[in-house]
Amino acid sequence: MKTAPGFGYTLLARDGMARRGRLATAHGTVETPAFMPVGTAATVKGMRPAEVRATGAEMVLGNTYHLMLRPGAELIAELGGLHRFMAWPGPILTDSGGYQVMSLATLRRLDERGVTFTSHLDGSRHELTPERAVEIQDLLDADIAMQLDECPAAGRPEAEVAGSMRLSLRWAERCRAAFRDRPGYALFGIVQGGVHDHLRRESARALAAMDFPGYAVGGLAVGEGQAAMFDVLDVTTPELPEQRPRYLMGVGRPEDMIGAVRRGIDMFDCVLPTRSGRTAQAFTHRGTVNLRNARHKRDPAPLDRYCACPTCTKYTRAYLHHLFKAEEMLGPMLVTQHNLTFYQGLMAGLRRAISEGGMADFAEAMTAALADRAAPPWTGAQDEPTETRP
Amino acid sequence: MKTAPGFGYTLLARDGMARRGRLATAHGTVETPAFMPVGTAATVKGMRPAEVRATGAEMVLGNTYHLMLRPGAELIAELGGLHRFMAWPGPILTDSGGYQVMSLATLRRLDERGVTFTSHLDGSRHELTPERAVEIQDLLDADIAMQLDECPAAGRPEAEVAGSMRLSLRWAERCRAAFRDRPGYALFGIVQGGVHDHLRRESARALAAMDFPGYAVGGLAVGEGQAAMFDVLDVTTPELPEQRPRYLMGVGRPEDMIGAVRRGIDMFDCVLPTRSGRTAQAFTHRGTVNLRNARHKRDPAPLDRYCACPTCTKYTRAYLHHLFKAEEMLGPMLVTQHNLTFYQGLMAGLRRAISEGGMADFAEAMTAALADRAAPPWTGAQDEPTETRP
Repeated sequence: MKTAPGFGYTLLARDGMARRGRLATAHGTVETPAFMPVGTAATVKGMRPAEVRATGAEMVLGNTYHLMLRPGAELIAELGGLHRFMAWPGPILTDSGGYQVMSLATLRRLDERGVTFTSHLDGSRHELTPERAVEIQDLLDADIAMQLDECPAAGRPEAEVAGSMRLSLRWAERCRAAFRDRPGYALFGIVQGGVHDHLRRESARALAAMDFPGYAVGGLAVGEGQAAMFDVLDVTTPELPEQRPRYLMGVGRPEDMIGAVRRGIDMFDCVLPTRSGRTAQAFTHRGTVNLRNARHKRDPAPLDRYCACPTCTKYTRAYLHHLFKAEEMLGPMLVTQHNLTFYQGLMAGLRRAISEGGMADFAEAMTAALADRAAPPWTGAQDEPTETRP
Repeated sequence: MKTAPGFGYTLLARDGMARRGRLATAHGTVETPAFMPVGTAATVKGMRPAEVRATGAEMVLGNTYHLMLRPGAELIAELGGLHRFMAWPGPILTDSGGYQVMSLATLRRLDERGVTFTSHLDGSRHELTPERAVEIQDLLDADIAMQLDECPAAGRPEAEVAGSMRLSLRWAERCRAAFRDRPGYALFGIVQGGVHDHLRRESARALAAMDFPGYAVGGLAVGEGQAAMFDVLDVTTPELPEQRPRYLMGVGRPEDMIGAVRRGIDMFDCVLPTRSGRTAQAFTHRGTVNLRNARHKRDPAPLDRYCACPTCTKYTRAYLHHLFKAEEMLGPMLVTQHNLTFYQGLMAGLRRAISEGGMADFAEAMTAALADRAAPPWTGAQDEPTETRP
């Protein structure tokens, strides 16, 4: 499979295994390492597109499983595609739907052909095959589509994990064959294999041989723990081609992303900053803060004194505490905005550290700050120049 | 009572009884007729202050009852007042809390001194006297404070309504005595008297004799119907001094406001545009629209083709329908934004119509449009120049 014209990854700098790069897509470029906010149902929860962009985000993720069930991929296509539907003009990555079928749908039946399942919304019956997963993502107009894969639950026997991984490889071939090449659009393969080094190597090598324009590492952040996840990355990323982007799916906490970037990962997505924002959990440069805690009731301090986002410059912790106590929508809106800004600031800091060859120092200083042992190093979501579309 | 320096109403134009004016307060000016979005708990639900301002709103309302209970008036004062707490730099009007005590609190006991009640939040016991109502609003730093009044439920016997009205007059005197004069701040008296012309006249005359810097008409929109409400306005506004602003509390629907402006009202507040926005009810120039209705599922049209707000220029009805079906926060956010823009556009249209002497034509054309019988007249929240602070 050749990289479609208009889609591509440019490796700009390296520091150890860490990479500073740029992704070009049909809807614009993305500076990497990059964090993609999750817009499950065609909206990043509680955020307007311009607000998402203002946090520094350049690309968002959509969930195929949710969108195929409601409002439906054909309906979104009829209305001009997902970018237009949700008014996000920038790049969009969609997952294949496979993971959510396993975690949300009921009455699942999986075989070589694909997976049939019952919608968690209305009990309707659906089928997701590799070909249909690619078709849906094409209807959505995703800049980056993901192959359908099978992600076994954590702790399954090795033979089962191997079987899932090899099924995912056969599905990768079928997705590749079904994918419609268009300039600026790409399909990524997904490395599986659980926590077994030799299975991860087998998966990565087989996918690399298929020459995908990008690769994801799947099946992590499902309860295996950070050390096991880092071990998997240590054996996986060296097997992946240097000139292709690498995406660690569903990760994660700030500390996870710092460690993953040091192991050669370029892209992340996670519900953590948005979901936490809705439950009053804030990520700050001195660790996490629970704004429901009574100690914030009279606190005139900003949420994060090292952050220049609107939430931190306009409001006190006392006000944010009040909003959550009063169950006002503005609480989730403001803390989500801050959390996403924090995540993008961390990515900007990582990009700069790699460019300057200071990755090790940055990682150490940032980790100390997140544990509230020291002031944070420079991050700078606000003022880093990028070359991307607005 | 003299109008405090810095506070004042300037009558700019008249068309019949309708008035085009300008209100000056400590935190800026307000073009009238004006609609004040309701920010009950120190936030207009689902809207950031800059978004509220962008709809054209110049002044918002805060609810004393809610704020005194949570987070507390003393706490807000300690944090610099309500403007700073909620990051709304413009004028704020607060009600006295009396109405909400009657509608929300339990175990109420009302006598000459004031009202004691049990909080609907935590069962704590509180007292609201005329003096305390004024003190709380002073702590909140409200540009316009309201006297404590007693608003009897609709349909009570005339003798009871008369008693409530006369108690409210005595409380008006006590509020006036307790009010701390500061430049740009004002206390309004509230006309009561139910649907009884002679009681309304008695109330209005007595309050006018006390020379308040502004007057509210209370006790309406409580189920008496539009015709009865208009009848009350017909006998009330002629009794109020010309050089003072007039505020119709808790009103209303677009048609109510058009009729009230024609009867000499300058200011309104109502939860309708915000509350309706959260339940998918949109106000448009061709009448109300329920976005949950299945007929919007595939509709590529904007919510209101005569509206230039971000909701109407960026999104389809199909997308808004999807957001409400998926119970996404962005649905309430976007429709609230549109509804407030619609309300402010209506006010801008009324202001222009009065200035140009075209109030009757405007009212007729707008009423026809709202009933979906004709295209709307010009309104223009978006492009009317105002002379107020941002």
